[in-house]
Amino acid sequence: MRQPTNVRPREDGLAVVIQDQTALPARTVFLELETEEQMYDAIFELKVRGAPAIGICAAYCYAVLASKLPEGGYDDFLAETRRFKAYLDSARPTAVNLSWALNRMEKLVLANSGTPVAQIKKLLRDEAARLQQEDMRVCAAIARHGLTLLNLKKGVGVLTHCNAGPLATSVYGTALGPILLAREQGVNIRVFADETRPLLQGARLTSYELDQAGVDVTLICDSMASIVMKNGWVDVCFVGCDRVAKNGDTANKIGTSGLAILAKHYGIPFYVLGPTSTIDFACETGEDIEIELRDPDEIKKKFYTEPMAPDTVKCYNPAFDVTDHTLISGIVTEHGILRPPYTQSMETLRAKLGL
Amino acid sequence: MRQPTNVRPREDGLAVVIQDQTALPARTVFLELETEEQMYDAIFELKVRGAPAIGICAAYCYAVLASKLPEGGYDDFLAETRRFKAYLDSARPTAVNLSWALNRMEKLVLANSGTPVAQIKKLLRDEAARLQQEDMRVCAAIARHGLTLLNLKKGVGVLTHCNAGPLATSVYGTALGPILLAREQGVNIRVFADETRPLLQGARLTSYELDQAGVDVTLICDSMASIVMKNGWVDVCFVGCDRVAKNGDTANKIGTSGLAILAKHYGIPFYVLGPTSTIDFACETGEDIEIELRDPDEIKKKFYTEPMAPDTVKCYNPAFDVTDHTLISGIVTEHGILRPPYTQSMETLRAKLGL
Repeated sequence: MRQPTNVRPREDGLAVVIQDQTALPARTVFLELETEEQMYDAIFELKVRGAPAIGICAAYCYAVLASKLPEGGYDDFLAETRRFKAYLDSARPTAVNLSWALNRMEKLVLANSGTPVAQIKKLLRDEAARLQQEDMRVCAAIARHGLTLLNLKKGVGVLTHCNAGPLATSVYGTALGPILLAREQGVNIRVFADETRPLLQGARLTSYELDQAGVDVTLICDSMASIVMKNGWVDVCFVGCDRVAKNGDTANKIGTSGLAILAKHYGIPFYVLGPTSTIDFACETGEDIEIELRDPDEIKKKFYTEPMAPDTVKCYNPAFDVTDHTLISGIVTEHGILRPPYTQSMETLRAKLGL
Repeated sequence: MRQPTNVRPREDGLAVVIQDQTALPARTVFLELETEEQMYDAIFELKVRGAPAIGICAAYCYAVLASKLPEGGYDDFLAETRRFKAYLDSARPTAVNLSWALNRMEKLVLANSGTPVAQIKKLLRDEAARLQQEDMRVCAAIARHGLTLLNLKKGVGVLTHCNAGPLATSVYGTALGPILLAREQGVNIRVFADETRPLLQGARLTSYELDQAGVDVTLICDSMASIVMKNGWVDVCFVGCDRVAKNGDTANKIGTSGLAILAKHYGIPFYVLGPTSTIDFACETGEDIEIELRDPDEIKKKFYTEPMAPDTVKCYNPAFDVTDHTLISGIVTEHGILRPPYTQSMETLRAKLGL
């Protein structure tokens, strides 16, 4: 399997190398994150983004920062890792994978209180690499399960929102996984990619990734999803997820809930694709999910040659919304497809995973 | 009543002066349209836009071009007006007001076959001015009727799409009319303005106009309408229209149909506001409305410092969509509010107007 290049440790283990997703599609830029401030900024500014990729990056960041700590006593080591963990964790609130990955790294530290610090550092580097390897297997499994939802004997149209492709994960991605897997098998699926305002991940990343992979992709504005569905061009919607509650309510990129409502109106199945690490079993419903609010200038100024609205005009800029579980046909995970009622299928999965 | 400045004849009657809507909000620019090519381009490039404003501008353009014709025989005069009428009419297909206004001007020419050409020119200039004056009265009436839909005793939230304000008409606008009228009466309505991709009329024009008028306006991306509705901030949606079929199906800026579906999902009334000149009694249903497709670069490149998607990526860029009549709570015209079933209320209106 291809090795991911979007997030990886530098060979000396003292930096995390990421592909700067804000530079695409115009430029291919790699950044070396050495300090915790650089790491925080990379996550906050979406230079690395996509729930699984954020988790992987955070794990590598944790390992790198830990490697740089003095080889003193365990207590000092633990205290320092706790400090930078809290700092990194505060970069973005909605995607659960950030805290999930950091918690997993801390769990390893806590489980090794009797181990020399130098050895814990090695364990942490291995754990981050393992987490990425797992994501590769998870994405491949999601792609396989997702592909069973498509009737490839006839031409299939898929509409997707934001970016849940290789850049957002390790390989394949989540929502784009079945499409890329089909492409590998010689089947071309027709994809409609919402540009995904305000940060245009659909235009800059999804249309770029699919085009590079030779997939038949058509870029549309978010507001065009309704007419594209009405035209009969969409057989199914595939989207990723940033946090899934126990009842199936799903936080994902702003605009996802509106898309799900349109899909229901037009009778089009709407699937969420994501690793089980994105399910937050501590979260009862979508009501409990914190929605990140971002800078108004992302709407008024970002990317533009001049401001598109007066400085005095207010903006409301939530980065995510919650799609009600009643609008979701299924949740595709590496362990198969969860179906409604989600409280029940989630509980079965949880028991199976021993969580 | 304030006189509109967005479209007016130059004092010598040999040019139409428009405010260039593509320069806003950064710059206030007025353009003098002297040739038919300049007029066509102004309409095609949305320097003048908004269904009623396009109609008014087209009428003035017709009068100006007619004024410049030689004072020869009637037949030559008629042939020349027919030629430039067809040319102007081809600038944009969806908004009915363009052909409606041009037809009205031609009707005057046809009704005056015995009149000296110099006198017909004068009649045409008067007719264009009359058409604009009528639009001012029509917009004021729409604003009054629309205002009856709002319960001003409690705070009211209105969501609107694209721009249907003074710039798009003469004064008040259509969808923004009730809001601006309320503001004149000292009542502040909270407005959420969709930015309206790809040409951002909501950001560049609506948020600008409302902000200038002292209205409490919040700009959002189109994809945020769902969460804004879910938050309980929207009591009603007001949108304009470019062509309304006899059954109530309404063509308006791309994204309107999706908004109407969201409004239905959240139980929010959805109103279309427009002059009766926007009703196309020759059009049975929305199926008969031609949807203008525009340049992909409006999505990928326009306004940006660099392209947001690779050149090789396809775009689908419809400028309008059709909102099904079943999603529309009422159509607010200068003659009152049409209610479903629209085939019936439209027929009553048509009989009343003697059309």
